Amino acid sequence: MKKQAPYRLYLPENELPRQWYNLRADMPRQPDPMINPATGKPATLEDLTPVFSTELVCQELDATTRYIDIPQDVREMYKLYRPSPLIRAYNLEKYLGTPAKIYYKFEGNNTSGSHKLNSAIPQAYYAKAQGITALTTETGAGQWGTALAEACAYYGLDLLVYMVKVSYQQKPYRKAVMKTFGAQVIPSPSDTTQAGRAILAENPDTTGSLGCAISEAVEKAVTSPGTRYVLGSVLNQVLLHQSVIGLEAYRALEVLDEYPDTVIGCAGGGSNLGGLIAPFMRDKLLGKNNTRFIAAEPATCPSLTRGKYAYDFCDTGKITPMARMYTLGSGFIPSPSHAGGLRFHGMAPILSKLYHDGCMEAVALTQARIFEAATLFARQETILPAPESAHAICAAIDEAIRCRESGQAKTILFGLSGTGYFDMTAYMEYQEGKLQDVPPTDAQLAAGFAALPQIPQNEGI
Amino acid sequence: MKKQAPYRLYLPENELPRQWYNLRADMPRQPDPMINPATGKPATLEDLTPVFSTELVCQELDATTRYIDIPQDVREMYKLYRPSPLIRAYNLEKYLGTPAKIYYKFEGNNTSGSHKLNSAIPQAYYAKAQGITALTTETGAGQWGTALAEACAYYGLDLLVYMVKVSYQQKPYRKAVMKTFGAQVIPSPSDTTQAGRAILAENPDTTGSLGCAISEAVEKAVTSPGTRYVLGSVLNQVLLHQSVIGLEAYRALEVLDEYPDTVIGCAGGGSNLGGLIAPFMRDKLLGKNNTRFIAAEPATCPSLTRGKYAYDFCDTGKITPMARMYTLGSGFIPSPSHAGGLRFHGMAPILSKLYHDGCMEAVALTQARIFEAATLFARQETILPAPESAHAICAAIDEAIRCRESGQAKTILFGLSGTGYFDMTAYMEYQEGKLQDVPPTDAQLAAGFAALPQIPQNEGI
Repeated sequence: MKKQAPYRLYLPENELPRQWYNLRADMPRQPDPMINPATGKPATLEDLTPVFSTELVCQELDATTRYIDIPQDVREMYKLYRPSPLIRAYNLEKYLGTPAKIYYKFEGNNTSGSHKLNSAIPQAYYAKAQGITALTTETGAGQWGTALAEACAYYGLDLLVYMVKVSYQQKPYRKAVMKTFGAQVIPSPSDTTQAGRAILAENPDTTGSLGCAISEAVEKAVTSPGTRYVLGSVLNQVLLHQSVIGLEAYRALEVLDEYPDTVIGCAGGGSNLGGLIAPFMRDKLLGKNNTRFIAAEPATCPSLTRGKYAYDFCDTGKITPMARMYTLGSGFIPSPSHAGGLRFHGMAPILSKLYHDGCMEAVALTQARIFEAATLFARQETILPAPESAHAICAAIDEAIRCRESGQAKTILFGLSGTGYFDMTAYMEYQEGKLQDVPPTDAQLAAGFAALPQIPQNEGI
Repeated sequence: MKKQAPYRLYLPENELPRQWYNLRADMPRQPDPMINPATGKPATLEDLTPVFSTELVCQELDATTRYIDIPQDVREMYKLYRPSPLIRAYNLEKYLGTPAKIYYKFEGNNTSGSHKLNSAIPQAYYAKAQGITALTTETGAGQWGTALAEACAYYGLDLLVYMVKVSYQQKPYRKAVMKTFGAQVIPSPSDTTQAGRAILAENPDTTGSLGCAISEAVEKAVTSPGTRYVLGSVLNQVLLHQSVIGLEAYRALEVLDEYPDTVIGCAGGGSNLGGLIAPFMRDKLLGKNNTRFIAAEPATCPSLTRGKYAYDFCDTGKITPMARMYTLGSGFIPSPSHAGGLRFHGMAPILSKLYHDGCMEAVALTQARIFEAATLFARQETILPAPESAHAICAAIDEAIRCRESGQAKTILFGLSGTGYFDMTAYMEYQEGKLQDVPPTDAQLAAGFAALPQIPQNEGI
């Protein structure tokens, strides 16, 4: 007989994973390699090490090592907030009257408020280990910048965060959190880089963009001694680090003698979803389960459900290598929405490949629906979710309702990637009926696709 | 040999306490009873039941029952966020170079962001069990209102929160959180009560006060059918519920074969401190330990270190019963500070008595010091503390430094009562060097004491 699951299951500290899991090692069909736009050829170690720490580039390019040791110093910092709890949503189940069992892996119980810390820590650690003294990055909503500021404070690295100017002005609290952890936060565009000065010369009143902030952060990294650039999503290395989410969830479900029939996560760049599904997808690829995987994305930025599978730049500034992924075009600007972490034009190459091969499904959800789900969830489970995470909640509720209708007692696992404490403006707009959902028009999408890189690999797309 | 403590120790769910501990049952010298100002005599069940739920009044007046069962329905909701972790501050210890072991009990990992939920839940539960359909309360900074909104959403009670108008305007995010949980939030003074209308008639532009909000909430409760008022601190019943903090900490330290030499908590109304120290103070009163207890209070509102032990009203409106406690006078207005939860003129009668009898010490700390401690703590331990909790951190760091100087390897336990996500304005003022500390002048204190109730019990004070 199965044990009654507690509300919250915390694995003991000594069950914190000792290795990350590299899903690529078990993918029979590999994602296509990144391409260096300067050479038109797959990006090499030499192409990437001026920008990223060497060990991270090695991880980025490693498609064969199945398990990679988590350095002891990284595990020590992980222990400050991990293992994170696996929670049984008893109250939500009861409210929905569903025979399904709903579990969620909660990554919000740390000051960064999300799973972002899982990759910020190793990225800061490897930089430190290499003798690098400073990191640069960009941040929009501020969650990634906060996570990285925590990690840099811990390892004693300087951190320069280029924060999109409009966010810098609208989200002073996020900025203050980063400063508490010792980060320097600069509104972008700024006069600290050539890229920033050029944009300011052309348009002094611009409120900035993520593309511009990336350009500034990369330029600063490659032109400053002992400095590297770091990125919080999309990359293979980031999904590798985030596998700690899935590995813990897998082990916790094992303790409970459970296995998920459906695994659901929100998807922006893909780091949270990619990390959560990793070990369950391994089982699927090895023919050991029949689990469904669902990516929940915003209707305003539907890269999987309405994008094209093509080579594209990861940034609007077109300075990064090109990756083959589902994309809306690197110039695509989604209509305003409050799920800032999901407003990325593309999707991690690993997830794009799995989706392309039919191993994963995707749904696009409106803000009206996800805030309704978030509010219901908060009242039943007492956790205030981030708008991003609310996409996963909404898809999980939909699945639980289908179970009620079909009478199937499925086991559902979803990722609750973060909390919404810094998103109350969004909740207020929902409460006041002011939320808008403007999905892209067909013409907008066509314009985005027309701007895809004209390279041989994209022919016929 | 002692086991190596993990960073975070979570007791399993089945070790969640089954009973609260009533410290009064072990106090050889009892706190003086509350006095009904209308009769001049100790407040009775009959005096208090029109305002509070009956079971809560029974708990308020019960000085003899040592352990009181936690109702099963309350334990079910506790399980949504408890047991809370006991954390070993390894990084802080290392940074300070202290031989002391520092442990902290972290109560911030729930959406209310503080320990307040521990009492909000039973208060809502007992109201529901009695057939009451609605609760009223006041809130300043909003933490208590948020906790109560969560509890009322869970038990299906209506909640009306009178929020001090200036906070309502300055803290729209807190208001939005309460609304997410279904509470109705009204800026006070309002036209929904006689008290509010009278104040507005006199001064239409007033930004309100906690005293006024209490008056409105109590009036609304006693004039509305099926409605009761609830309070989040100071009262005996609240300290009883909060004993769950101390009981869990006690058990967790037992698991680690540890016992604290010093227990430290921040003190405003006293609910967090009173809950944390309860079982350790029991041991002291029974002669079983030589532990020091330290209350950390703000220099701007130093009720223990500079107040008088006298009968006083719990509210500025003078409508509540009088309690014998350390007080600065119910009309005392502390200079602005960011530790909103500690800006109360008095101190819980139980704690006041213990302090008066020499069982507990107190220190008063400036904002400059506590934000310095908060920032240091965040960088070492990755948790962003509430300004209130930072008082306990600061006092714990002081104690750890004394240990470094004396070479004593003491075991320190402090309460980290909450997180600072909604206090970033305060952090920003600290970062910009704008914080001010204005302790009360002797003349201010004298005026506060002169306004103490002129009753026989206060003669000679």
